[in-house]
Amino acid sequence: MLLHLSTWPEVENYLQQSQGIIFPIGSTEQHGPTGLIGTDAICAEAISRGVGEATQAMVAPTINIGMALHHTGFPGTISLRPSILIQVVRDYITCLAKAGFTKFYFINGHGGNIATLKAAFSETYAHLEDLQIANSQKVQCQIANWFMCGSVYKLAKELYGDQEGSHATPSEVAVTQYVYPEAIKKAYLSPEVASGHRIYGAADFRERYPDGRMGSNPALATPEHGKQFYDLAVEELSKGYLEFVNQG
Amino acid sequence: MLLHLSTWPEVENYLQQSQGIIFPIGSTEQHGPTGLIGTDAICAEAISRGVGEATQAMVAPTINIGMALHHTGFPGTISLRPSILIQVVRDYITCLAKAGFTKFYFINGHGGNIATLKAAFSETYAHLEDLQIANSQKVQCQIANWFMCGSVYKLAKELYGDQEGSHATPSEVAVTQYVYPEAIKKAYLSPEVASGHRIYGAADFRERYPDGRMGSNPALATPEHGKQFYDLAVEELSKGYLEFVNQG
Amino acid sequence: MLLHLSTWPEVENYLQQSQGIIFPIGSTEQHGPTGLIGTDAICAEAISRGVGEATQAMVAPTINIGMALHHTGFPGTISLRPSILIQVVRDYITCLAKAGFTKFYFINGHGGNIATLKAAFSETYAHLEDLQIANSQKVQCQIANWFMCGSVYKLAKELYGDQEGSHATPSEVAVTQYVYPEAIKKAYLSPEVASGHRIYGAADFRERYPDGRMGSNPALATPEHGKQFYDLAVEELSKGYLEFVNQG
Amino acid sequence: MLLHLSTWPEVENYLQQSQGIIFPIGSTEQHGPTGLIGTDAICAEAISRGVGEATQAMVAPTINIGMALHHTGFPGTISLRPSILIQVVRDYITCLAKAGFTKFYFINGHGGNIATLKAAFSETYAHLEDLQIANSQKVQCQIANWFMCGSVYKLAKELYGDQEGSHATPSEVAVTQYVYPEAIKKAYLSPEVASGHRIYGAADFRERYPDGRMGSNPALATPEHGKQFYDLAVEELSKGYLEFVNQG
Amino acid sequence: MLLHLSTWPEVENYLQQSQGIIFPIGSTEQHGPTGLIGTDAICAEAISRGVGEATQAMVAPTINIGMALHHTGFPGTISLRPSILIQVVRDYITCLAKAGFTKFYFINGHGGNIATLKAAFSETYAHLEDLQIANSQKVQCQIANWFMCGSVYKLAKELYGDQEGSHATPSEVAVTQYVYPEAIKKAYLSPEVASGHRIYGAADFRERYPDGRMGSNPALATPEHGKQFYDLAVEELSKGYLEFVNQG
Amino acid sequence: MLLHLSTWPEVENYLQQSQGIIFPIGSTEQHGPTGLIGTDAICAEAISRGVGEATQAMVAPTINIGMALHHTGFPGTISLRPSILIQVVRDYITCLAKAGFTKFYFINGHGGNIATLKAAFSETYAHLEDLQIANSQKVQCQIANWFMCGSVYKLAKELYGDQEGSHATPSEVAVTQYVYPEAIKKAYLSPEVASGHRIYGAADFRERYPDGRMGSNPALATPEHGKQFYDLAVEELSKGYLEFVNQG
Repeated sequence: MLLHLSTWPEVENYLQQSQGIIFPIGSTEQHGPTGLIGTDAICAEAISRGVGEATQAMVAPTINIGMALHHTGFPGTISLRPSILIQVVRDYITCLAKAGFTKFYFINGHGGNIATLKAAFSETYAHLEDLQIANSQKVQCQIANWFMCGSVYKLAKELYGDQEGSHATPSEVAVTQYVYPEAIKKAYLSPEVASGHRIYGAADFRERYPDGRMGSNPALATPEHGKQFYDLAVEELSKGYLEFVNQG
Repeated sequence: MLLHLSTWPEVENYLQQSQGIIFPIGSTEQHGPTGLIGTDAICAEAISRGVGEATQAMVAPTINIGMALHHTGFPGTISLRPSILIQVVRDYITCLAKAGFTKFYFINGHGGNIATLKAAFSETYAHLEDLQIANSQKVQCQIANWFMCGSVYKLAKELYGDQEGSHATPSEVAVTQYVYPEAIKKAYLSPEVASGHRIYGAADFRERYPDGRMGSNPALATPEHGKQFYDLAVEELSKGYLEFVNQG
Repeated sequence: MLLHLSTWPEVENYLQQSQGIIFPIGSTEQHGPTGLIGTDAICAEAISRGVGEATQAMVAPTINIGMALHHTGFPGTISLRPSILIQVVRDYITCLAKAGFTKFYFINGHGGNIATLKAAFSETYAHLEDLQIANSQKVQCQIANWFMCGSVYKLAKELYGDQEGSHATPSEVAVTQYVYPEAIKKAYLSPEVASGHRIYGAADFRERYPDGRMGSNPALATPEHGKQFYDLAVEELSKGYLEFVNQG
Repeated sequence: MLLHLSTWPEVENYLQQSQGIIFPIGSTEQHGPTGLIGTDAICAEAISRGVGEATQAMVAPTINIGMALHHTGFPGTISLRPSILIQVVRDYITCLAKAGFTKFYFINGHGGNIATLKAAFSETYAHLEDLQIANSQKVQCQIANWFMCGSVYKLAKELYGDQEGSHATPSEVAVTQYVYPEAIKKAYLSPEVASGHRIYGAADFRERYPDGRMGSNPALATPEHGKQFYDLAVEELSKGYLEFVNQG
Repeated sequence: MLLHLSTWPEVENYLQQSQGIIFPIGSTEQHGPTGLIGTDAICAEAISRGVGEATQAMVAPTINIGMALHHTGFPGTISLRPSILIQVVRDYITCLAKAGFTKFYFINGHGGNIATLKAAFSETYAHLEDLQIANSQKVQCQIANWFMCGSVYKLAKELYGDQEGSHATPSEVAVTQYVYPEAIKKAYLSPEVASGHRIYGAADFRERYPDGRMGSNPALATPEHGKQFYDLAVEELSKGYLEFVNQG
Repeated sequence: MLLHLSTWPEVENYLQQSQGIIFPIGSTEQHGPTGLIGTDAICAEAISRGVGEATQAMVAPTINIGMALHHTGFPGTISLRPSILIQVVRDYITCLAKAGFTKFYFINGHGGNIATLKAAFSETYAHLEDLQIANSQKVQCQIANWFMCGSVYKLAKELYGDQEGSHATPSEVAVTQYVYPEAIKKAYLSPEVASGHRIYGAADFRERYPDGRMGSNPALATPEHGKQFYDLAVEELSKGYLEFVNQG
């Protein structure tokens, strides 16, 4: 059930049965010479909708821009400052918590969002307690990173080994190929790819990772792989979501 | 050209030819008993992509949550505080302005966003001047409200007269029916609909507008109307965009 | 009744009879070679006091600095960032709402304030609901732009036609001449005046509007005109205020 | 020279000769049963204009609302939060510093503003250095509290002794009587007046100081006293201003 | 009783008997060629612990970084912006006020903190009232500057006369020598020392006070003096604390 | 080399040889019935100083209050909101980066700080790039959690097995016993200890973990264990620090 394709009375009905909601969160950032700038949002959205269908859960609009300051040296990247993303998440949750939602499940497509999201959850719990709204004590948020699902991780290692890398990975590119086969990009990929550097500021990042990839070979990706990853992630996260909403 | 389906080198190439970008901005808010919660974002996104195709313009990811605090009395509505939306817009524009974009065209689907967007533009111009980035003086932002296009407005009056109303209007519902025919909702709509009250806070709004509509009869909407509105808006805003990017 | 010339017991008494208050809001910004930097605040204050006398309404101290970032390329202009003006307005209203005021009527002298004021109202309504103070649901804010009064607009067109322009207009200059006849300025005004450019950042504005005027010929202003504008505005806004405070 | 009654070319000329500007800052807060709510702003404004005339200094619009949170238990009081007043002052100074002003002299009428103003100056110096604007190192701000002038203090002690008190004092009330003789208020003043309590929150303040006075007997004030205080303050602060602008 | 060496059940017990807590607050800033960068925090912490022992008061962890923006031209200085220090203090007090503490006694070692601390208290009182927590009206904060104790001041004048100066003073250096005899520094101190300049921005400060001292001769300090100052401050502030917690 | 026991010329000298600095960061939060409220700060500070001695690194004052909102249901806990801790860290790093430091090594004693610290680093890198200070591109921050050192983790498992738990652990309590043997606390510890619950808001946390422990048995701690942990952490983190400062 997609929130943006629902009416408010449908949401009211839904809340009679469930107080859970899924938030896809991605990023709009460079993903190397062939990866789509929307990769993280595309993956998070597709998998979230799959989980929504599998579990009858409400799925909120995708947060398509996240915390990607370190990628802003490449054109096309858009990022929020962490302090602003915290306030955005606080506002989203607060609106929905006032309406009765208590279980917020963020299906995340971007490693760079994790820290800020966790900080946002802490900030939001305290804010809701200060507001003294009904059920504020019941509000729970959880991050589920689809790319860290055990089954996904295992398949990526099997298919790509070390060439999976850690950014602009063949696994995430594969999912975007499955979702948007019409947008499969071809470009020369140097066989030598930078890897192993820690992430600091944007200028430093671009210097260390000149084409944007981090140790990955996205040329290995296929739409068929993408479907496999998608199916595994949906299955694993559907279980995860149900455990989350059913726990006390 | 959709930013999220592009690669960073494609963006780099695009910037050689154009510094313009279109931002669809909508809202996630109640639209009466039959209107989709995502109506404003759906319309803005569809029309923006139409304009993007017609003009070869880059289209950024949709800002699907805007300033809808007055609708938060209805479940499913999500809103940013204006002060946060200002910072969000500032961050988006700043990232892209650093990369070389200078013409930001916001195709807007929600009247409630207008004031905050304008405030955000002022805040952003000053911020960019403070940053002293190249081209900061060339950065220009413009709001184009598709529902205020002359041709759209005229058709709405012809088709619906006074029943167009001002929120959950048949014209916007029609566009969503055209875009998502599978999500056409039916529900009882009282022939008596509140209208004429000014907008203040959320609790007041829900009291004055108990089913969320403001003077509108969305039952008049059809997908065919929606296509007409879509075509008109795309045509008019394509001209508007080209004038904007081509002006000094 | 002027708030700054009242005592707190007088305010307490006033609140027994009315919960309305008028806020003059202007700006401190360049108004061309002959317009006073305080033009917008002077007009808003004078007209507000006229309305206050006509309606027995409480008039708050003038907000004499508003949102004029685009004029900051000219010396003497002072502006708040929109995000700060929002907080200022929120603080003003919150203090008075806690004391029992519920109807806030902003008589505005500067077009550049409108967007930020509207954003501020939205932010404030939500803040007051969060505070759960008594009467928070009854708080209502309204902007009344004296220069957009129908009668004012009509007279300006009659007197000045196209030479009214849109900034440093003869109508607003005339009001300042009526209020401060001792401060009537004379200076050379080029017969050629820039007009028709949209407003973006401050450096761009000064380049496009080198002497600060936007299509206006303030040399046409006279103190007698000023009195006419003043009288019309006071009459029209007094009606507006009474409708506002008497509505539900 | 009053900024709001000047044109921008006049400001440009002024800057050729002086980079100093006077900011009157007051408050809008209860001043006991007979003191005007605008007392602090009225005094600061009148004295600032006197100093401006005596020294040919530019005088900015009055900051008529300051930091008076502890008085908000009384109706009619309006206060900014300190964190917002800091940003307001930062914006004011930044606009003017970019235009070439470097010497900011705040003539202050309210003890409660002092701490926040000093904090604002520190914040602003650092902000200007970060902006790297020309002359940022030359920017200097100073607070001059008219009620702490040696000559004023001495006269108050002579005229009123202990009945001067520390809020709603006869000396400040006298100045307002001199400036606004038409607004002299009469009301019963209990001979017993609270004094000696420290200032904490607003509810606590109202409990400890039930009529708003702090140890004062404003019934002793006369307009003639007011003129004496005014003259002393103008003389002493004119010297202070000139020393300030002439120092390195 | 040191908070950081207590357990939460011990704090719970303490609150049965007292709602007072002492916050040492210092700074991390240059103190001339021989003064420790931690001088202000060291003094505040040592004296606070002495007061805590003498009065059985709870002592919170030291706020070791304060408002020292004007010293940031010297390496090793760390400062918060005033607007951030206000929020820090607000958070500290809010957490403890929710737990039942109502009397917050800040033993301060740095003049530059005073204004921001006072602003923070005002901001916090209003915040607590908005939160409507139990006892919010009882919350009281007080600053006690050890270096302004009458007995301390008197001894400093006796021992050092004018060579006490106002920054990197022999009295504060002496206290650090008493606390950390192993960290007594020797370096050439010019007999000529800058003094008498007001404090503005950081670059200006370093230019006017090239070695960081303000009129002081810290070479006069001895650990024995330090003990004397320590004893006097502890005695005087212990009385001050007890008066504070015992007042209504 | 401890920053607070250094002079500014010593810092200037240090910067000739190294641009690295260690920041101990802990928390002030409940650690169960017998754990010290300052546990996390105590451990981080002691180990940081050990690393500083071993590597000749500069050690900054301890950040003794961190992100512990979920513990605020227990008296004595003090926490910053994440959004404020981000600004605090930004200010600290910015001051030192302007002075020439580029390598910031945060030795952390509290898991709850990690997310916010990472967010703060991202925010800070972008801020420094905006400031365009020299060396901004070279600034690097790293978190080193002493309790996650391989050697520490291994020993904890050997000594305590499952009774290590995840909060108020015997390993961290042991380190505090080693550092402050005089503050070893004894209290009844229920053999049944809550564990396995995720962390959400403060009220929820206290309900799920009624005595504050998370699956731990701190009664197993001894000062001798503490020394072992300390030694292992210092050794491992000294290597970590040197690698960090020596990398490009």
